[in-house]
Amino acid sequence: MTLKAVLLILDGLGDFQYRKLGVKTPLEAARAKNLNLMAKTGETGFMFSIAPGVIPGSDTAHLSIFGYSPKKYYFGRGLYEALGAGVELKEQDIAFRANLATIENNVLVDRRAGRKSDFLKSLFEELNGISVEDVTIIAKHSSEHRGVVVLRGPGLSDKISDVDPHKVGVPISYCHPLDDSEEAKKTARIINHLMHSANEILERSKNNALRKDHGLLPANALLLRGAAKYHTAEPIYEKTKAKFSCVAGGALYKGVAKFVGMDVVDVPGATGDKFTNLRAKLEAAIKAKENSDVVFLHIKATDSFGHDGDYVGKKQFIEKVDREIISGLMKNFDVIVVTGDHSTPCKRKEHSGDAVPLLIWGENCRADKGTFSETNPSPTLFIRGEDLINIILNKIELLKKYGE
Amino acid sequence: MTLKAVLLILDGLGDFQYRKLGVKTPLEAARAKNLNLMAKTGETGFMFSIAPGVIPGSDTAHLSIFGYSPKKYYFGRGLYEALGAGVELKEQDIAFRANLATIENNVLVDRRAGRKSDFLKSLFEELNGISVEDVTIIAKHSSEHRGVVVLRGPGLSDKISDVDPHKVGVPISYCHPLDDSEEAKKTARIINHLMHSANEILERSKNNALRKDHGLLPANALLLRGAAKYHTAEPIYEKTKAKFSCVAGGALYKGVAKFVGMDVVDVPGATGDKFTNLRAKLEAAIKAKENSDVVFLHIKATDSFGHDGDYVGKKQFIEKVDREIISGLMKNFDVIVVTGDHSTPCKRKEHSGDAVPLLIWGENCRADKGTFSETNPSPTLFIRGEDLINIILNKIELLKKYGE
Repeated sequence: MTLKAVLLILDGLGDFQYRKLGVKTPLEAARAKNLNLMAKTGETGFMFSIAPGVIPGSDTAHLSIFGYSPKKYYFGRGLYEALGAGVELKEQDIAFRANLATIENNVLVDRRAGRKSDFLKSLFEELNGISVEDVTIIAKHSSEHRGVVVLRGPGLSDKISDVDPHKVGVPISYCHPLDDSEEAKKTARIINHLMHSANEILERSKNNALRKDHGLLPANALLLRGAAKYHTAEPIYEKTKAKFSCVAGGALYKGVAKFVGMDVVDVPGATGDKFTNLRAKLEAAIKAKENSDVVFLHIKATDSFGHDGDYVGKKQFIEKVDREIISGLMKNFDVIVVTGDHSTPCKRKEHSGDAVPLLIWGENCRADKGTFSETNPSPTLFIRGEDLINIILNKIELLKKYGE
Repeated sequence: MTLKAVLLILDGLGDFQYRKLGVKTPLEAARAKNLNLMAKTGETGFMFSIAPGVIPGSDTAHLSIFGYSPKKYYFGRGLYEALGAGVELKEQDIAFRANLATIENNVLVDRRAGRKSDFLKSLFEELNGISVEDVTIIAKHSSEHRGVVVLRGPGLSDKISDVDPHKVGVPISYCHPLDDSEEAKKTARIINHLMHSANEILERSKNNALRKDHGLLPANALLLRGAAKYHTAEPIYEKTKAKFSCVAGGALYKGVAKFVGMDVVDVPGATGDKFTNLRAKLEAAIKAKENSDVVFLHIKATDSFGHDGDYVGKKQFIEKVDREIISGLMKNFDVIVVTGDHSTPCKRKEHSGDAVPLLIWGENCRADKGTFSETNPSPTLFIRGEDLINIILNKIELLKKYGE
């Protein structure tokens, strides 16, 4: 019988202890008896998902962890968001990560329209299919305030500036070409036109009237970032001869998984937020096991609590994961890997370049003396993200010997 | 006075503990007071001989440990076996690792002719010098059932399939060309002819009659694998300005050492098996020290016990090494490195991609708090094989500062 592995990524798991002795990180403070049991009977250590000190984005981190060097395979966030949102991209398409946002007198007042997603799906649909010059706009909602915009038409370029100013209190930026090509000039012109048209359409939409009735900020501006051309990569099955499935809520993670050729499972209730249905994800992972050797299971909320600076929330969510997922994984998989894609320390409220704790448990694993923790006193593994897949395939005996 | 180092490779040293708490690996269970003393007063850690998770062959692992990336310097097993067996290769030669094996009614029944080596040297000699078309066959015995076959003649290629099916109960495979070149077609044709001729010669040999008289399986088939062209590499002395000697029993290890330009010492009684004369190897290493800075000392049996799944045998052999070699090395070398080329866990009976324990002792070494063990609680070294030579040269003060 073949061995099956699950790779559980708790997004932004790594943390600090606030420079005080005796203060624990959220992971260390969490009462997590299943994780602790695995640490006692498995291997532990640290992983830099890209390289020591490098501050990974979620996109670059996952590429690296899947064995696709971001130096070679990172083409801008729009590509992975579009794939994850289920847009079928074509050659020549230019894809963007899109937020619906709120402007007042042309000044950006909320980059996420108050983080209230009511009616946003319909608003994205109103933008879908409009034309600017000879270019068609594909707009699709993914989750919360997030969505995807794709420009489809001849002679477009990804060499254009972002219009998202990444802060409030300023106007949305004009888009300008980043090189001298006609393609970049045309694309920038179309984006600027689109910003204007989108604002008009959104302003007069019934859906925004409904949002106002509900006391919500209007979603009256389209914020684009991460322009990316369509690219493909050698499928992970071709590279490894192992079958991978993805169980994730967020579009980005599904998109990176799709980009590398994983089988992406749709899980109702897997929202990629703090209220995601963990039990549904566990069940989906167990089901995905039937048709794959390795199941990639992504959980986002640890990162969101880090961004919010919510230490207690992060700790309690780790406890929830331990309670609702870990023991189920232990019963159903031969090899379990638990780690983060990067650190999102509550004190920093942003990603950091610090190593994430790493835990490998199950068949062919040694029982070392370490703990699953940022201050593990006896780590036996120090790896980079690019090595993780080989380590998993070695444990489930799917690697061929290199040489004789 | 210059410092002298020995690099002791215990082949396949690394192991697991069978997923139970409190169960020790063979290395951890071995009563090895000299190794323990070195660990207490030296540096310890882990080494991935190629990269984390990668399952090394013995050939690729040793190339990597000697600082020759197998991606660049691995050309197929035949090359290193031929060099190790003492065949003087020429440009255009194609070399193979060869077994004498047993077939019945054209079906392979034993890939190693019962692992009984009686008369095999003579049988290899009977094949030596025969011709197929314009190609001369060089056949040479190395150890036990092992030997080397080299095709010497014009217009040959290494782009051909293996004839060794790597399992019994099936016929020996036909050789076919792996590309469209005339050279590959010719080489495959010659190999198929050679298989047939060898079988005829071996069947009617007096030596096989003698084997039958002794109740042994006939060695009536030639099994070839690992076709390789002749290649050279920049000698290790040119790269490092340090002199290296090799003390090993197995042809492969001598061959990789010769490939990188080490001075290979012949040691009577160093058989590369479980009955190898360890004291003779120790004496040879001490003698080799006179003309070298670093002596590479290879011991194979730890790997063989792993392949056989013999936990007690592996543990006891480590104890024997500790008793018969280690204290002698401590008296005669300034710096001692002990590690494996890869793990061969008794439970798996095959190589694995897990890190091997690493121990460095002697001049310029720190005394860290670690142990020489797969579950070392305080490792201070985490390296790849490609870094090992620099680490040794640093300790024996033969490295120049890089920069100022």
